[in-house]
Amino acid sequence: MRYCPQCGHAVNMTTPPGDNRVRAVCPSCDFIDYDNPRVITGTIPLYKGKLLLCRRNIEPRLGFWTLPAGFMENQETTSEGALRETLEESGSVAICKQAFSMISIPHINQIHLFYIAELERDDFHATEESSEVALFDLKDIPWDELAFSSVTKTLTLFIEDHKNGTYGFHEDTIHLNNAYDLNQ
Amino acid sequence: MRYCPQCGHAVNMTTPPGDNRVRAVCPSCDFIDYDNPRVITGTIPLYKGKLLLCRRNIEPRLGFWTLPAGFMENQETTSEGALRETLEESGSVAICKQAFSMISIPHINQIHLFYIAELERDDFHATEESSEVALFDLKDIPWDELAFSSVTKTLTLFIEDHKNGTYGFHEDTIHLNNAYDLNQ
Repeated sequence: MRYCPQCGHAVNMTTPPGDNRVRAVCPSCDFIDYDNPRVITGTIPLYKGKLLLCRRNIEPRLGFWTLPAGFMENQETTSEGALRETLEESGSVAICKQAFSMISIPHINQIHLFYIAELERDDFHATEESSEVALFDLKDIPWDELAFSSVTKTLTLFIEDHKNGTYGFHEDTIHLNNAYDLNQ
Repeated sequence: MRYCPQCGHAVNMTTPPGDNRVRAVCPSCDFIDYDNPRVITGTIPLYKGKLLLCRRNIEPRLGFWTLPAGFMENQETTSEGALRETLEESGSVAICKQAFSMISIPHINQIHLFYIAELERDDFHATEESSEVALFDLKDIPWDELAFSSVTKTLTLFIEDHKNGTYGFHEDTIHLNNAYDLNQ
């Protein structure tokens, strides 16, 4: 940030009084820019025991397979965002069953959150964001063609829980050099 | 947002190509402002079965009791943020045991996340943000003097789980007229 979004004046990078972090501060109108982590929310969409994946039609990771997910928007809940992204990326209507994974990725200021979800019908299709949408047997997940490390981690945990017959809530962290950025 | 934070030009409120939401867009440098929900992260701090609460020394809800919590910052994980806030607000060093509650509050674009945590020592004190910090027996929680509905909801769930002897992960939503805004 170089200019104040409220008044257009050039900002200073400084630690505001009572704070302990450097922020962009406007010397004209006292606006302070708080830049905080963003939440990516998505689903592990299941239909009759099969897993829905989307082949990315956009960068980054064009052509790789992913779980439907994207930036949570204002005025929605985490699960509403997950279902919106599932519809936008795969054309499918799903229902969230439970929160499954929450992965902090601090070097890109993101949290990735995935829900176990069930499709109401086997009704899905390619979209602007997905060149292909398909159901996979759990034994046929294309591990070498997954788009993001948070997806690989989430599906690895999901398969472990599936084998154990019970699904928990999992928290994890992905550090630098072990992640791809899901740009907006 | 009225001015572009990148170039200082006045922005337009419009739906960018390929998007379906109105955003602030700069006609000069094509900057798009994505304003997303923020995460408040905090703890349910326990010491020998007692609960640590902080009496707020700042607005909003000055004088009311709260769990230590605050806005997650860039470059940290959700649990690191929870422990940082616990230290800042109560002077205590804690360890996160498990994620306990995740509460979406869509009308204020926030997610409140609380961890069950344990204090390493009974070492805590008033801080700039807390006029008083104290341990409470679980039967003596000051329910009528709690600062925020997400705190009341989280502690209600915690007491239920405590009675059952097992602690789960709980997701919930707080809607308009049922919440107080935790301003930054």
